[in-house]
Amino acid sequence: MKIALYQGPGCVNDLEAGFAHLRAQAASAKAQGADLLILPEMYLSGYNIGPQAALALAIPQSGLAPAQAAAADLNIALVFGYPELVAGQVANAAVLIGPDGRILLNYRKTHLFGDLDRDMFKQRGQDFPVAELGGLKLGLLICYDIEFPEPARTLALAGVDLLLVPTAQMEPYEQVARHVIPARAYENQVYLAYANHSGEENGLGYIGLSSICGPNGAVLAMAGTGEEMIFAEIDPAHHQAVRQADPFFTDRRPGLYGPIAG
Amino acid sequence: MKIALYQGPGCVNDLEAGFAHLRAQAASAKAQGADLLILPEMYLSGYNIGPQAALALAIPQSGLAPAQAAAADLNIALVFGYPELVAGQVANAAVLIGPDGRILLNYRKTHLFGDLDRDMFKQRGQDFPVAELGGLKLGLLICYDIEFPEPARTLALAGVDLLLVPTAQMEPYEQVARHVIPARAYENQVYLAYANHSGEENGLGYIGLSSICGPNGAVLAMAGTGEEMIFAEIDPAHHQAVRQADPFFTDRRPGLYGPIAG
Repeated sequence: MKIALYQGPGCVNDLEAGFAHLRAQAASAKAQGADLLILPEMYLSGYNIGPQAALALAIPQSGLAPAQAAAADLNIALVFGYPELVAGQVANAAVLIGPDGRILLNYRKTHLFGDLDRDMFKQRGQDFPVAELGGLKLGLLICYDIEFPEPARTLALAGVDLLLVPTAQMEPYEQVARHVIPARAYENQVYLAYANHSGEENGLGYIGLSSICGPNGAVLAMAGTGEEMIFAEIDPAHHQAVRQADPFFTDRRPGLYGPIAG
Repeated sequence: MKIALYQGPGCVNDLEAGFAHLRAQAASAKAQGADLLILPEMYLSGYNIGPQAALALAIPQSGLAPAQAAAADLNIALVFGYPELVAGQVANAAVLIGPDGRILLNYRKTHLFGDLDRDMFKQRGQDFPVAELGGLKLGLLICYDIEFPEPARTLALAGVDLLLVPTAQMEPYEQVARHVIPARAYENQVYLAYANHSGEENGLGYIGLSSICGPNGAVLAMAGTGEEMIFAEIDPAHHQAVRQADPFFTDRRPGLYGPIAG
């Protein structure tokens, strides 16, 4: 499986433009041989748009039909963030749409970041669902979720091979892009794609530095600070070799970890 | 509190030389203003010495008297690894000795690394103890322990401010020194000192790259690949500011983390 990652600004306050931009990026990724394209957090609507706009733009999963059509027309899987309408409120969601246009996975951010998130998103996720695609198990997290070791660990324990993380990472959190992302890939022995915004959005400066890491923590591809598409290949043989060389998951001692879930 | 970290070879197969070298390093650290000196895993005996030598050199905690005398004479706290004799077998242990010469903390490696550890160490730790020194809470881990997110997290949840990690990190695990260590400091908002061997020991090549990281993941000091002493200052005001800026520990959702301790 070849992954493409789009780093760039979202289409602020305009879902129709968002869907059109999404289709264009998907076509570009497909033309470059990608089987899956991941885009940033709240990509479809913009992220730093405030609670009123987030509520006005929020859509139920059924509102994702234009993205599903793009995926099916182009035969490419898509992962992107959007404001999901849930019981009249907004969740910060990310969706995985298969290359046949079906919704395979819908995840709601479980860890809300400060007032920025809490003002916009009155709904939050209660679990870490997984899905299969192309013989791989996939999981989704969103931005702040990955800064905690537990969500990625929980997905790895559920057998996830490829962790897809739309984000909206701003200054001064460069440590996350530089160190935490490769560490999460390494400690969980998963492929990890971390797709950030670039540029500025209503006064918020995004740092870019999106990356795709391998299951030994190696940075396979890393973006700069501007708009960019990067690529990496999933190699199941390499993945298996990494897991055999270092049996982290049989060397764990869960009996000593009680306080983490306490 | 000013921390010194000694990176270098251990004194292979010679405890008497080990204690003498330890005193010399402690004197050097003290002369440079340090309040605490951390040294590598199995520093006192050498690490890659094989099961027979490890058993022959293993000592109970009462055998640490020369190190306690050095700490008290020089008025400096010491952390180092040694082969601990426990019920006739060997544990890969690390000890914290206070500046008054008292043993404040003795930790036994909980996560054994491959045959290398398992052949030498028939005893392993069953908990993550903490101690207080100079108004700070301190915890110890050893090498492979830090590659798992759970041990450091468990210590952070117990209130640890400063995590001290003697190690014997070899090729090809540079990802750990480069990324996992700053990530552990960042995600747990702790000061973290990671003290490695340098050089070669019975065919095992150590990578050096010891470091002291701050609670925002910043690398405060990092060694190269040879023998070296590095220093960093603990700043409680900075520590408090980091914790207030990003309330990771109130934003956690332990109710979702059950599988980690399951």
